[in-house]
Amino acid sequence: MKTLTVALSKRSYPIHISRCDFVHSARVLLRLCKEDRIFIITQPRIRRLYGDVVARVLGKSIKIHWLIFPDGEKNKTLSTVEKLLTELSRHGATRNSFVLAFGGGVVGDVTGFVAAVYMRGMAFAQMPTTLLAKVDSSVGGKTGVDLKTGKNLVGAFYQPKAVFIHTDFLKSLPRREFLCGLAEVIKYGVIADAKFFDFLEHNREKILRLDEKSLLHIILRSCAIKANVVRRDEKESSLRAILNYGHTLGHAVEALTGFDRIKHGEAVAMGMAFAARLAVHLGRLHAKSLARIENLIRDYGLPTAWPELSQKKYLAAMMKDKKAGQKNIKFILPQKIGKVDIVPLTLKEIAPCL
Amino acid sequence: MKTLTVALSKRSYPIHISRCDFVHSARVLLRLCKEDRIFIITQPRIRRLYGDVVARVLGKSIKIHWLIFPDGEKNKTLSTVEKLLTELSRHGATRNSFVLAFGGGVVGDVTGFVAAVYMRGMAFAQMPTTLLAKVDSSVGGKTGVDLKTGKNLVGAFYQPKAVFIHTDFLKSLPRREFLCGLAEVIKYGVIADAKFFDFLEHNREKILRLDEKSLLHIILRSCAIKANVVRRDEKESSLRAILNYGHTLGHAVEALTGFDRIKHGEAVAMGMAFAARLAVHLGRLHAKSLARIENLIRDYGLPTAWPELSQKKYLAAMMKDKKAGQKNIKFILPQKIGKVDIVPLTLKEIAPCL
Repeated sequence: MKTLTVALSKRSYPIHISRCDFVHSARVLLRLCKEDRIFIITQPRIRRLYGDVVARVLGKSIKIHWLIFPDGEKNKTLSTVEKLLTELSRHGATRNSFVLAFGGGVVGDVTGFVAAVYMRGMAFAQMPTTLLAKVDSSVGGKTGVDLKTGKNLVGAFYQPKAVFIHTDFLKSLPRREFLCGLAEVIKYGVIADAKFFDFLEHNREKILRLDEKSLLHIILRSCAIKANVVRRDEKESSLRAILNYGHTLGHAVEALTGFDRIKHGEAVAMGMAFAARLAVHLGRLHAKSLARIENLIRDYGLPTAWPELSQKKYLAAMMKDKKAGQKNIKFILPQKIGKVDIVPLTLKEIAPCL
Repeated sequence: MKTLTVALSKRSYPIHISRCDFVHSARVLLRLCKEDRIFIITQPRIRRLYGDVVARVLGKSIKIHWLIFPDGEKNKTLSTVEKLLTELSRHGATRNSFVLAFGGGVVGDVTGFVAAVYMRGMAFAQMPTTLLAKVDSSVGGKTGVDLKTGKNLVGAFYQPKAVFIHTDFLKSLPRREFLCGLAEVIKYGVIADAKFFDFLEHNREKILRLDEKSLLHIILRSCAIKANVVRRDEKESSLRAILNYGHTLGHAVEALTGFDRIKHGEAVAMGMAFAARLAVHLGRLHAKSLARIENLIRDYGLPTAWPELSQKKYLAAMMKDKKAGQKNIKFILPQKIGKVDIVPLTLKEIAPCL
């Protein structure tokens, strides 16, 4: 088992990464709980697959209250949040109660937000089951839900008390979801670590057959890069924005296609290719690096071409991004493999590449 | 005009108190806005009464977007929050946009929460119109909404950039609402300032006829006491709980009578009388001090007797309080006029006084 720390002074927390050391996770969780019960928020699929394991490891020492909401990103709404908050309240949850987010990114984002706002803040931990959640959403304290008008428009910065990553959960993860997680893994290579990018180029076969050692390495490296960025800029005053490489067009693609047809990781893959092309177009990146980025994305079975929709629609959707100002959009553009810049661009500068 | 500071290092902010110095407020607001527009969240009654004044003072220099939600505490819900967030998003509000809460406590609490969670946080200011909001809810950064299962169960600690208090708004405030505000004013005397309690005993007539100098004094003193408590314990780890004197039974009364029949200030008045009686019963307060507290509450036309409902109902409702643990309830009990203790009590200790 490996342990990383997200260093945020009083709000610092550990990320425990192992194949399946559930006993250790249970021991840490029990220490974190101030009451003789724990609330676990999850979705039906994960409850069905792993509810018994969790009940076996935790249930002897502590009462488990399961709070379940329906599968799918479309339930990442304030109405789901309200239902969960009301359930917590009906169970008499207090400020000292503890919540565990057990599932993919949607569960983590929703649960973190529920914990952030229930009685103005209760403690929670993350046990991410998808690759995307393991390497991205469970680390860094961004929580929240979607509005009808856009993705992740409502939320809070709220850090968990611990993150428990078990690679064994990946065995039941649908292939497409696994590849989506790899999009964020590739992102870390592009934004911060050329050596890691090389590793991804040279270990494709092992990673895709879920080789244990390779999985632990890519998760550890991804979490370490993210933790380092978050440590330096928790609330995204500046640097943290680099984590949004690929997300500006990505979010627009998701919004314009109704959130469900194209998955987040696929949209980010398209967005990374787009931002790299934009960087080449603006003379900020070498064409060879663009080729390497696009090839790596494709090698992992991810798309580099975005849906053919009008320029106008894309620009309007991107203006709704949280990073957008009234007149420009902050784009994350690669300068070379392993290094990106934050560049405010006008719509005129972006349009030709769409 | 008087200015106080709520000292919270990076999150410090000023409270400007004047009779009607709107021009000064407008000047400060314009400095706070990073965009050429401001969003003002209010309710129909306040918009009708003061919309023109605000538009006259602010509207020349900046575009005003009015976001209105229906009058009444019953609209302090997540569904109102969702509508306001969606409106902000439809107007293309960004993280740099600015919101002004213009109204009573409900407007302040809802707006603060909307600002806290829109894109994970945008700037806002408070312009409270009721006495209750001026001396209590607009200061200190507690924001949030009710659930069907209880009051203020959802929320965030989120500080405004400034608070603008104009006593002139009190002229249009219904008498009953004004008295409700005085309940919180009396609270500050009991919890922190015996001299202020004396002042309230000796200046009843002036205060009740809205004498300008007396109003400025009680608002200034109330805000100063609250700011001092919040400065020392922003997120209610301990000391801040003293501000909840009268609120434990108060919240139960409101919950049990459906939030609308008995007003918050009236419920707090009942709660203050109850907590003082409980303190006498437990040998922690002199009966003479109880008499002074009850007399002062009655002198200001506020109730000291709570509705006759079963002990069981009261205890169950109090266990839902945010300050409650699984087995006890933190009560704020006066030790003498001007000093209170935070005392965890079991239901058995509380019951005899109900």
